[in-house]
This record gives sequence, C-alpha cells and structure tokens, in this order.
Amino acid sequence: MTQFSLHGIVPPVVTPLTTDMEVDAPSLRRVVRHLIDGGVHGLFILGSSSEVVFLDAQRRAEVIRIVMEEAGGRVPVIAGVIDIATDRCIQHAREARALGVDALVLTAPFYTRTSQAEIVDHFCYVRDAVDLPLIAYDIPVCVNIKLERETLHKLYARKAIVGLKDSSGDDGNMRMVMRDFAAHPDFAVLTGSEITVDYALLGGGHGAVPGLANVDPAGYVRLYDAARKGDWVAARAEQQRLIELFEIVFQGYPDTSRNASGVGGFKTAMQMMGLITHRHMSRPNAVLSDAHAAKVRAIVEKSGLLRAG
Amino acid sequence: MTQFSLHGIVPPVVTPLTTDMEVDAPSLRRVVRHLIDGGVHGLFILGSSSEVVFLDAQRRAEVIRIVMEEAGGRVPVIAGVIDIATDRCIQHAREARALGVDALVLTAPFYTRTSQAEIVDHFCYVRDAVDLPLIAYDIPVCVNIKLERETLHKLYARKAIVGLKDSSGDDGNMRMVMRDFAAHPDFAVLTGSEITVDYALLGGGHGAVPGLANVDPAGYVRLYDAARKGDWVAARAEQQRLIELFEIVFQGYPDTSRNASGVGGFKTAMQMMGLITHRHMSRPNAVLSDAHAAKVRAIVEKSGLLRAG
Amino acid sequence: MTQFSLHGIVPPVVTPLTTDMEVDAPSLRRVVRHLIDGGVHGLFILGSSSEVVFLDAQRRAEVIRIVMEEAGGRVPVIAGVIDIATDRCIQHAREARALGVDALVLTAPFYTRTSQAEIVDHFCYVRDAVDLPLIAYDIPVCVNIKLERETLHKLYARKAIVGLKDSSGDDGNMRMVMRDFAAHPDFAVLTGSEITVDYALLGGGHGAVPGLANVDPAGYVRLYDAARKGDWVAARAEQQRLIELFEIVFQGYPDTSRNASGVGGFKTAMQMMGLITHRHMSRPNAVLSDAHAAKVRAIVEKSGLLRAG
Amino acid sequence: MTQFSLHGIVPPVVTPLTTDMEVDAPSLRRVVRHLIDGGVHGLFILGSSSEVVFLDAQRRAEVIRIVMEEAGGRVPVIAGVIDIATDRCIQHAREARALGVDALVLTAPFYTRTSQAEIVDHFCYVRDAVDLPLIAYDIPVCVNIKLERETLHKLYARKAIVGLKDSSGDDGNMRMVMRDFAAHPDFAVLTGSEITVDYALLGGGHGAVPGLANVDPAGYVRLYDAARKGDWVAARAEQQRLIELFEIVFQGYPDTSRNASGVGGFKTAMQMMGLITHRHMSRPNAVLSDAHAAKVRAIVEKSGLLRAG
Repeated sequence: MTQFSLHGIVPPVVTPLTTDMEVDAPSLRRVVRHLIDGGVHGLFILGSSSEVVFLDAQRRAEVIRIVMEEAGGRVPVIAGVIDIATDRCIQHAREARALGVDALVLTAPFYTRTSQAEIVDHFCYVRDAVDLPLIAYDIPVCVNIKLERETLHKLYARKAIVGLKDSSGDDGNMRMVMRDFAAHPDFAVLTGSEITVDYALLGGGHGAVPGLANVDPAGYVRLYDAARKGDWVAARAEQQRLIELFEIVFQGYPDTSRNASGVGGFKTAMQMMGLITHRHMSRPNAVLSDAHAAKVRAIVEKSGLLRAG
Repeated sequence: MTQFSLHGIVPPVVTPLTTDMEVDAPSLRRVVRHLIDGGVHGLFILGSSSEVVFLDAQRRAEVIRIVMEEAGGRVPVIAGVIDIATDRCIQHAREARALGVDALVLTAPFYTRTSQAEIVDHFCYVRDAVDLPLIAYDIPVCVNIKLERETLHKLYARKAIVGLKDSSGDDGNMRMVMRDFAAHPDFAVLTGSEITVDYALLGGGHGAVPGLANVDPAGYVRLYDAARKGDWVAARAEQQRLIELFEIVFQGYPDTSRNASGVGGFKTAMQMMGLITHRHMSRPNAVLSDAHAAKVRAIVEKSGLLRAG
Repeated sequence: MTQFSLHGIVPPVVTPLTTDMEVDAPSLRRVVRHLIDGGVHGLFILGSSSEVVFLDAQRRAEVIRIVMEEAGGRVPVIAGVIDIATDRCIQHAREARALGVDALVLTAPFYTRTSQAEIVDHFCYVRDAVDLPLIAYDIPVCVNIKLERETLHKLYARKAIVGLKDSSGDDGNMRMVMRDFAAHPDFAVLTGSEITVDYALLGGGHGAVPGLANVDPAGYVRLYDAARKGDWVAARAEQQRLIELFEIVFQGYPDTSRNASGVGGFKTAMQMMGLITHRHMSRPNAVLSDAHAAKVRAIVEKSGLLRAG
Repeated sequence: MTQFSLHGIVPPVVTPLTTDMEVDAPSLRRVVRHLIDGGVHGLFILGSSSEVVFLDAQRRAEVIRIVMEEAGGRVPVIAGVIDIATDRCIQHAREARALGVDALVLTAPFYTRTSQAEIVDHFCYVRDAVDLPLIAYDIPVCVNIKLERETLHKLYARKAIVGLKDSSGDDGNMRMVMRDFAAHPDFAVLTGSEITVDYALLGGGHGAVPGLANVDPAGYVRLYDAARKGDWVAARAEQQRLIELFEIVFQGYPDTSRNASGVGGFKTAMQMMGLITHRHMSRPNAVLSDAHAAKVRAIVEKSGLLRAG
C-alpha cells in the first residue's frame, strides 16, 4: 500500500474539449494550475463530472498524462476507472497504473443489474488486478444500485477499498457509514456533494469531491480549513456562499438534461473565467445556449469570481 | 395567525395501544410527561411515527384530547391531519382545531398521483378551511411525491404554510430550501431525521422532529441547546451518541417491515423503560419478537438509558 | 362462499359529483343503466376510477345504495374497500356487506410501507372480519408496492382471496399468475387495462375492469364475446377501436395530473354523451378546461359514440 | 436502405465463454446452427443476453465474425452496438458495419442521464455515421430511461430508425406504439419478452427477440407460424409451454443476481443440451451452482427438450 492520504478538497476535474471532441490540452493544463493554485489537496480525474464514460481509452490516457505532468507531484492524482463491467474496469485500471496515478476510483457495474455479492466480487477482481488503493464510488443515480453499508464493510474487511466517495445524496446513510468506520483511520469518507460539505466534515468526513470546486477551488479550501480548525461558523458562511454559486447548475434545465445543465454550467463559468476555451460537452449532451450562459454569468458575477461585463 | 413559534425539538409522539387496539391513555400520558420533562419545545402528535394513518377519527380525537390535557399549555401541540385527499384532511383539521391544537401538519395527497399544482391547491383548500398555521410535511417515501422547492415557494407566497417538516432524507435539497427562506424568519424548517439533526441546525434549520426523541428527549434537547450556543463539537458528540441509539430501529428488519422495525423499535425501548405498557403497533404491522426485543434492550442498555438486566 | 362468479366486463363505475361535491345520484343511476344496457357482467364500484379514496364513509355508502338499487340484482356488484390500513378497510367492508354487495376488492395498505408478510396478514384480517369473497387489487402505482406472485399463492392457500384485479401494467407477470392458477377455476384474474384486454383474455384471463368501459361498455362486451368464441381477429379489431378512443385520457396532461386527465377524460366524454351532469372530480384534482374538453370531444366523435357537433 | 426485413423470431444469441473468458468459438458455432436449424428468421448478436456490455471491441468483433461466417447468409444478422455514449456506439457501429452485419441495435445512452431530446440526437448521430438500418432498443431496466412514444415518432420522422425492440415490459405502451405505426409497414416492432410473444403478435407486432429461443428456437418458430396463420389457440398453447420452460431463469435468484440467474439459466440449459461447453458468464456475474443447475435440468427435462438423466 502506498503512503497516499485521502483527504481534503479533491475536485473532479472537468475535461475541456476541442471542437472536434478531442481533449483540449492547453485548457486542461490551465484548469489544473487553477485548482492547485486554489490550494486543493488532490485531483480526481476521470470522474462523472469529467465526462469519463464518454471518453475512449486513448482519451482517458491523454487526460491522465496531461494532468500528471501538470500536477508534477504537487498533489496526489486519483483516477476513475469507471466502466460497465469488471474486465473493462481492469483494463482502465492497468492503464492508469502504468501512467502513475496514486489511487483509483470505481463504481458498481451498471447496465446489467448485479447483486451486492457480485459487487463485492467486482471490486475484489479489480483490486487483485492492480496494486493500487481503490476508492468505492457510490452514485446510485448513475449506476442504479446503492453500495450498501454491509457491502462497504465486506470490501474493507477484504482490504479491497481504502475509502468512499459518496455521491448518493443520502447524507443520513453516509453519516452511519462514517460512524461505522470512525475507529478505522485508514478508511476515508468524502462527500460528492457541493452543498453539504460542511455537514460532511462536521459528521467526521475526511473531505469532499465537489464539481463546483472546478469554478471556485479556493472557496472550498477555505471551507475545509475552517472546518479543520473547528470554526463551524466560518465553514458554514463559506458553504452558504458556495450554495449561491451552485445555482449555475440549474440554468439549462429543462431545456437540456440535468447533466448537460450541471456540468455544462461548470464549463460555462470556467469559459467566462478564461480557464477553458469551449463549454460544450461530449455527445449527446446539449450545449448551453447563449441565453443560458447569460444567466450563468450573472450568478458568477454576483459571486465576485468574475467582473461584471 | 397565532403567536405559535415553530422551533426546537418537537418529537412525533408515538401512540401507545392497548391489546384491543384502543389508545392506551395512561401510557400516552406517561409519554407526554417524559417528553416535557426532557425539555422538548413542542409535541407533534398524529404523525407517521404516531401511526396516524391507522387511526380513525374517534381515536385521533382521543389522542389530541389526552395530549392537550396532559401538556396543559406548557408546550405547543401540533397535530397531523394526514389523509389521502383534501376533504378528508379538512375534516381532520376541523376536529383538531375544535380541540385546540396550535398548528397543523399536512402532506401531499397520496394513493392518487397529483401534480405539483394540485398539491398547491390541496394545501390552500385546507388552509382556507381552518384558521390555523399549517406546516408542510415532505415525506416522499410515504406519499410517493416530492414537495418541490418551487411548490414551497408558491405555498409561502399564498400564506398557506408557516414551515416545513422535511423527512425526505434529501439533506441537500433541504439546505437549498433553508437558503431560499433564510430571509423569511416567519418560515421554519425542521428536519425529520434522527441522525443528521446537527447538520440541519448548522445549515440554518429551526429544529427537529426525531422519532427517537420519544426514547431520549433530553439527548436531543442537549443537542439543540449546544447548537444554539454554537458549540458544534458538543452538538456533534450528542448526535453521535444518538446515532448509536438509533440502531434500535434496525433490529426487526427484514423479519418485519422497515416500519414495524422502526416504530416498533421505539415502542420496544419505551416499554423497557416503563413508559408504555405494550409494544405492538396497529395492524398489519408485525410485532417485534422477544429475540428482536433482546437486541433492542442491549442497545438501550449500552446507551445508559436503561440499567443492564 | 357465495355463488358469485367473477368474469367478463366489470367496469369500475365512475362517481359523478354535484357542484357541492356530493354524489350526483341521478347521474350515477344513468351511468348504471348505461352500463347494464351495454351488457356488462358486473359493476365494480368504489375503485380508483370511482375516486373512492376521496369519498368519506357516508358518500361511499350512498354510492353503494344507489348502485345496488339501480342494478336491482341484474348483475353482481363488487365494492372496493380501499383505505390506508387494515382497520379502516374492515370498517368499510362491514358497511359494504351490510348494504348487500356481492364481493369486495382490497389493495395492499399504503402510506406506511409494509412487507409481503404483513400484506398477507392484512388481507386475512379483512377476510376474517367479513364473510364475503375478497378480490386482491394489484396497483403498485397507487400503493407503491407489488402484490408478488408468492403473496397471491399464500392468500389463495389461506382461502383469503377468490381473484385478482391486476392494474400493475406488468402483463408478463400477470401471465405467470394466470399460469399458476390455471388449474384452479375458483380463482379469477381480471386485467385493469383498457388497451390489452384481448391479450389478457388470450392468456387465460377471466375478464377486465376497464375504466373506459364507462364510456363504451358495449364495445368491451363485444370484445369479450368475440374472445369467448375464439374469434381473436374480431376481438383485436374491437380492441384497436377502443385504443383509439382511449386517447381521451391524455388530453389534460401535463396541464393537469395524469389522474385528473384520465378519469377526467372519462367524465368529460360521459358528460358530452348526456350520462353525467358535471365532469369535475374530487379535490384537489384539476378539472379539464374547455380546450381540453374540445379535444376529448373530437376523439369521441371520431369513434362514433357522439354525433359531431 | 438495404432490403433487410425485420420480422419473425430473432433470438438474442448468447455468447459462450471459455474458462479464460474468451469467446468459445466452437460452442458459438453450435448455437448458431441450433438456431438456424430451429427455423429462426434472424440472429440478434451482441444484445443484453449476449453479455454485450462485458465484451471489449476485439471480442465483439470476434462474435460478429464467427456468427456471420456460420450463418452464411441464410438469415440476416443484426448486431447490438450498445455502449454508454454516442461516440463509443459509433465506433462499435463502424466495426460492425465493416464486418457486414445487416442492421444495428442501439439503446439510449446510460450512466449519465440524458433528456429525450438528447436521446434523439444520440440516435441521429449514430445513424449519420453508418449507412445501416438502426433499430431502437427500449430497455429501461438497464439504461434507466424510457424511449417515449414521442421520441420514437421523432426518430422515425428523421429516418433514423426502422424498428423497435421493446424489452420494457410495458405491453400497454408497446401496444400504443404498434397502433401509432400501424400505417407504416416500414417500421417493425418486436417484443423482447419470452412470455407474451403471442400477445405482441396478436397486437400487430412483427416478431420477437426472446432469450429463451436460445434453448428452444423451434418452439418460438411454431408459435410465430401459428400466429401468422391466425391460429391463436395453437400460438397460445405453444406460448404456455414456453412459459413453463421459462422457469429456468428463476432458479439462481436470490443466491445470484436476477441477471446471473436469467442468462445463467439459459446457458445452463444449453450446456445440458450439449450446445455449449461452459455455463459461466462474464465477471462479476455469479455462476449457477450444481444445486441450481439440477433445478434447471428438471424443468428442461419436463419440457421434453432433454432426456431425463
């Protein structure tokens, strides 16, 4: 096992695209610098907000290479190896390992419905195939099944996972999981929420993986630092500010899907901030219209991240 | 509008039953004294944990009468008027008002699927029929529809509701709602959770309606008081302790339904503590077996609420 | 056990309402005559399409009395005793029995989630309380739980039910159930669908409970008669015609809820045909606008049930 | 557009695997011969029952090559190009086209939630990329979204699809779709059900894609032929027999997932019939135990497809 420590603000790095749907390397490098300058504690690449499932093996590798190089060892880089089934995940895991990432993130299989027992096997197969720390990713809205508490216990007992990224939206269950693992400091729980990060930290969570940190990494780092110091009033104030900014994810819906509105909202703000060149997403996600973008701009300006035009 | 202030720990009072399924008045009186002695800020009778939907009009009235009399004005009493459709709710509302309760709690209609617009009408019809403060109760797991943020805004704008009891389990959305109403101190948000009460208070919530407060009201009051003082470490410690105690709700499942395991777990603990005579619930809920009860006892003993047998 | 035979077209009789939300007796009598003149084999009153859950005990009794009297023994009358929980259902069952109905229809409990074992108990409690044939009503979209095949087997083994009204929309599972009970002619399976009645009869079903039969009972009777004779081409042709007519249920949505659009569509057509005086439904269901009604009219005219205005 | 005619029994061909998880070519060839000897009208390879989502590009290509060669033009071969998102589907589509398949089958994107409008775009992007007939595959249980009627209309209007494989289990909605397209003989509707094939054909469907036809192709062909002749009694009798055989899919559950029990049940029967060498599925699907297999054997023997051991 490596010395990798999973904690703090670990943004799921968006994947900027060129107009011919290739990885936009200069934009991606700018994003990485923006995040590290903001003080984040790690980078989670190839997650849901990174449009991972839209990327083929070659583009996934390209993202890893660019981010690893730009990060230059300043922060750990963890990579999603998210795919439909075990052997495809193992293939991604081997490629990610060869490129030097610090840890891997894995969901339950999807499309085909599996049992909790089969999910345990799935994680163990991947863990056995690559000697890297594995983080369980609970995201029922995407994979249509919950990683149950008992499943997490079994995976930990079998030394298959070192942590949980919880994007289930079920803060109560996550609280129970944090309680279950409170005596096991080698197991980390990070929330995937943008808007209840202070909650998760109060409840004993080790950090957060908020998509919105692509836009405002320094804000989330301030939130985290305040929480570490036990200054919950300051943590909450920062969280409240970020909740206002989070409204950017709702501006496209229902003209677009929620996903195109959400990740598209991040990309639109980042385009306005000069971080990325284009705001479109992978096909078939619709792109936010100029009218949507104007609404996003108003929210970002109000937050002070962007000077009013 | 009355002077009624909605805040603090407002337990959903369980309804003790005799062996012939009547309201067990002496037990109910003991429960009320136990709660008020524990320092609670109000009593929510005829909610889900009170088995309200199993009770006919006569038994509902009996519960109100007993609790009003025993409370004797020391704390406000709010009553659920939960039923399938508008006119049945209005009937309950009129009876509850005649018996002098301070406010009413109402869910969306159920069985028949309604639209959000029809839900707005539903609340307005009930509000127009009785001149009492109305609290919206969001509990999708029971009524199979969410009270959307926009619906709450419309209801508030039409002066139909003075608050929200959120039992949706979606702490993120509740956080957004608290943000929306932060500038409106005449609108209160209470969580229905047992295990994220410190979260809700940190996020700006006004209180909680935890079923587990039937067992340990003083614990929740300590949690609330710590939060009011801004002592989040103490609030969290109390919450962690209550999370341990909350395990009593899982001991019957899957031998019984989750509901029979949950409310049955409360009743079993309360029986052991000498508060109520019987632990069975309304039909068709299964009763916890002696083996289940032994597991509940072990948890309650460990919490210190009960001397080890 | 009575001589009651459950088969054929058994429409769920809509409940016409006066403007002050009372049962519109003259309209209801016209509907009953319309249905019996159309050749139906039974009447199912107080079902979902009858807005049963909106009606209090007094109005439920009134519906039973009016329909029993108007039917005059020409066809059996079966009554829904649909309510949230066991004891409320038993109360309805006793009243329906006292008024002389031939059989009762019961769903799983709702609001509170129950287990399949508790559902078995629920039906047995009701069956034990009244000496009348009981029909299980599978309608997960309303009660949020499925009556599983094994549950039906247990209920039949305990002589608690004599049949199934399947409104689940899961024609595959219903087919399996029909297979399971094929050797038990004392158990009847009726579909609640309007648009796959020929399927259900081909698969061994005993009949149908289509809400649309309120509008065109004779059409469904022709479908049933053709199927009985083994003339599946004629049965299908009639079904295809009724599918065209079924479009009336979609004209209000999404301006209204699906329920207000569906039952409201039936009522609107029946109003145009002179059967009922008003088309509104119980609160909080929205009423179809004149524009919606015009679309309903066009469909009914095209079907030949109404002369073009 | 090719001369390809989509109709009849088109089994989703299972993918036999070797112990090192490669495509078992000799077994696959035997399966193809078994199916064509059974009289099927086409072969659907790389569908859900083929474990398509578990196979990488190389193995997908291998399946296509083997089946194309073994079929030798005797029946059309249609291939699933099922993957998470548009560009990955296009890649599969190009490879399948290069290998000479007659048509392609495509689902909605999954993992990331899309809107119906984005689904329309998804299909159009794939259709534009390859000049082959495209069949829409509605399987909400896997992709977590429904292909709505209106979406199908739009896709047909844009000449993006030539048919529908409906595995939604919603026979009512499929009936409406068949009605919608009744006047368009260039659009075919096939059911994915094993147990309501007679229904679908009675309702105007053009054929079926039943996984169970891997085990008993001749039975489904007899069913189809009877239906074509209008002999619905014979069609139903064959369907009833196949429903008995269908019980093989339930023997592993809940020890395994439903999928491992279902496709595993097919493979187990096929192994016993000497068609394939191994019955295991792709990881992480559990393999049916010997005890499960014995139950499968008893069902297959009873059906007459296998001599009692």
